[in-house]
Amino acid sequence: MAHVVQLTNTRLVDGDQLIAQSLWFDSIKGIFVSHPQHAPASTVDCQNRIVAPGFLDLQINGAYGFDFSEDVARLSEADHDWHDELLADNDQPAAREVPSGMQAMPISFAMNREKEESKAVAGSDYSPQNLPYLGPSRSRRPSEGTESLGAHCEGPFFAHNRMGVHLPAAIHASGSTSEPDRVFQTYGSSNLVDAESKERDAGSIPSHVRMITLAPERPGALDTIRQLSDEGIVMSIGHMAADYQQARAGVDAGATMVTHLYNQMNSHHHREPGPLGVLTDTDAGPEMRILGQGTEDGGVKRRPYFGIIADGSHVHPASLRLAYQAHPDGLVLVTDALLPLGGEDGTVDWGSRQLTKQGVSVKLEGTDTIAGSCVTLLECVNNFRRWTGASIPTAMRAVTSTPAAVLGLEHVKGTFQAGADADFVVLSEEAVPGLSSSELVVDQVWKFGVKVYDRCDV
Amino acid sequence: MAHVVQLTNTRLVDGDQLIAQSLWFDSIKGIFVSHPQHAPASTVDCQNRIVAPGFLDLQINGAYGFDFSEDVARLSEADHDWHDELLADNDQPAAREVPSGMQAMPISFAMNREKEESKAVAGSDYSPQNLPYLGPSRSRRPSEGTESLGAHCEGPFFAHNRMGVHLPAAIHASGSTSEPDRVFQTYGSSNLVDAESKERDAGSIPSHVRMITLAPERPGALDTIRQLSDEGIVMSIGHMAADYQQARAGVDAGATMVTHLYNQMNSHHHREPGPLGVLTDTDAGPEMRILGQGTEDGGVKRRPYFGIIADGSHVHPASLRLAYQAHPDGLVLVTDALLPLGGEDGTVDWGSRQLTKQGVSVKLEGTDTIAGSCVTLLECVNNFRRWTGASIPTAMRAVTSTPAAVLGLEHVKGTFQAGADADFVVLSEEAVPGLSSSELVVDQVWKFGVKVYDRCDV
Repeated sequence: MAHVVQLTNTRLVDGDQLIAQSLWFDSIKGIFVSHPQHAPASTVDCQNRIVAPGFLDLQINGAYGFDFSEDVARLSEADHDWHDELLADNDQPAAREVPSGMQAMPISFAMNREKEESKAVAGSDYSPQNLPYLGPSRSRRPSEGTESLGAHCEGPFFAHNRMGVHLPAAIHASGSTSEPDRVFQTYGSSNLVDAESKERDAGSIPSHVRMITLAPERPGALDTIRQLSDEGIVMSIGHMAADYQQARAGVDAGATMVTHLYNQMNSHHHREPGPLGVLTDTDAGPEMRILGQGTEDGGVKRRPYFGIIADGSHVHPASLRLAYQAHPDGLVLVTDALLPLGGEDGTVDWGSRQLTKQGVSVKLEGTDTIAGSCVTLLECVNNFRRWTGASIPTAMRAVTSTPAAVLGLEHVKGTFQAGADADFVVLSEEAVPGLSSSELVVDQVWKFGVKVYDRCDV
Repeated sequence: MAHVVQLTNTRLVDGDQLIAQSLWFDSIKGIFVSHPQHAPASTVDCQNRIVAPGFLDLQINGAYGFDFSEDVARLSEADHDWHDELLADNDQPAAREVPSGMQAMPISFAMNREKEESKAVAGSDYSPQNLPYLGPSRSRRPSEGTESLGAHCEGPFFAHNRMGVHLPAAIHASGSTSEPDRVFQTYGSSNLVDAESKERDAGSIPSHVRMITLAPERPGALDTIRQLSDEGIVMSIGHMAADYQQARAGVDAGATMVTHLYNQMNSHHHREPGPLGVLTDTDAGPEMRILGQGTEDGGVKRRPYFGIIADGSHVHPASLRLAYQAHPDGLVLVTDALLPLGGEDGTVDWGSRQLTKQGVSVKLEGTDTIAGSCVTLLECVNNFRRWTGASIPTAMRAVTSTPAAVLGLEHVKGTFQAGADADFVVLSEEAVPGLSSSELVVDQVWKFGVKVYDRCDV
């Protein structure tokens, strides 16, 4: 077993428990293996620290001065290979994100920049320059940094009154062309085609575009959701004006997630619960007849996963608890991080606009409009634990196995099962001044069986 | 065991289960007893039907043309004893309510009628004529009807913008007198004094007023909550403009319930969760530090019980699910029923105003303003089951053991334990046309060990 490494003396995340159990991986193939019959080539003593699968972020727009929607185009035009820039160069965000334990991400791509705008709005069959470069980097086995699992296209098929900081001119007006056609034209069919569908079950990434966020109440949106989810693309509802029934219809059509729950959607009202209400729909399948209001047949309702930005400024802790208590297995922590993440507080250019970073919050310069965040996934995990009292392994699920399941990669990412990628983090608990609870700190990060970060070496 | 009756062949509500087990009660003392050593005097074959404790309604204003806030005064002025009118006379609501299984209630008393108004607003130490008559009827052992557990005073210490259908003139402006003093003056100290405090642990009712609903954000309201809860009166927050922190403060001061959750209070917003947020506060006691917003020390947070009107018009089924999933053990089904309950659809006089009943909904004549409901507690139970998929015994808790616990009567009402009052209902499941789920139907009602209703005899 020349290449098998054994992790000993661990507290391994296993469902909702931490268990003392060894873990084995093949350092050449970069995957976990089951208990070998022969002695491993080497062992690593984890000194009774917590070992969790590598973190996944389903929504990240950039970091460390790098904007995936902007700079990738620049780099590709300059004939750079941005993967090298982004993933290999230690000055680039993927590598810099590693200390926070984040190891894989569908790179969020907001098609809302001047460069793309005219073409996007034109709606001719046009392939955005960025998307091919935002595709999965899996085959490259980048051992130095974070891996791309494909693009999460956020927009432009939004509600006009729920755009957030996306550019108005990029939001499509519903037109004569059927919405599904317009979506294919806008993203470029070549970016939506599944090149390796036969391998999809093996966990390969179907296309450059991995995930799309759109508003389900737009005319034709339900057809779009049906067609693209059939193509294996993860459809998420968000930036929407949908009421409860319209959000319900989006999920029934095949959407499996809600993008940054609470933000850029209708608030809950007790007689019109809005998208939040869809999280409560029971799987038990009882009828929901409303007395005096006819019959509303429930049938079996599928609950969507939901992303939530736990930075303390997007949602109140009690609102996170509310959604979590309604649907604990659906919660996915996301950062929605922008390029100022990892930088100093202050103002930076962002396309034609400017962003002001203050701590974990980012706003459009000169306004109170929140624009994404500057929080790391690890900070979100620590907030989530403080706000809910969730155990460490339970909190880990929200950044490992649950986002992996959203992407259909539950056997490849966010798990220790044999054959899965050997991505994992070694964590310590540290006391927090003034708080009785502890905070998790990342001591080591291993990617495809290679140690890429050790706090002791920094 | 001359007076012991054994119930055989039952499916007994036991926590979240239905168990086949006998039940014994003393037909003279009117209480449940433990398994006797000698053969019982008689047995009753329940034919494998469901047996549950008698239902409790924490909020009912009237029924069958009778208004507790209005007609009790009239009857008492006319030198009637309204208990006989209300409880013994089969034309009166208490008896008429029996077929729905409702057996005990703190009678809701809205101090908002013309008769009371001037005196109430004057705020001199005045004892409302009604309250003494609304006190607990327990000592009377009324075997023909529903029992009063004391008055639930709803108002007049409300937020001015959350009055609902209560009369504006009755709402107290916050004045120079300290709020606690004004509350004692308004209800009358004699109605708030605990005459039998030594017996309270034995489940006796402390005073004519059993429960008070007020707005916690009013100046001095927290002192009022502290003083009255020390007197053994159940304090509930409602008809309020409170935000999350103000509602939290009311519960921390001693309020143990939220009155008709969602109605007449602030809606949830993701950055200002309002009273709904208090239901989510975890008992685990983690700190709730909001990044970049200083420290908000959670400590151990007590969750309040909450009443909810499951008539299909006060709240959407998804909103009921949301609150139930956040705090399943806190949910109490209430009717908030008004005098048209049990009558024909149409318009009836209500003090100086008129109410229009249509099905289960009641509105102020000529408006869209909802005024209470015309739903029975049994209909609420059946709605709750359809909307949540909850099991029969779980649904029973929301009208038996949980409301009993709110009143501190968990050993006397809503339970089968030895020494508790032998109030129980025998239920059947019936198919519902067009629905796959069944509906519960009340076959028999027993009060203090005496059968007071049998569907077969009707």
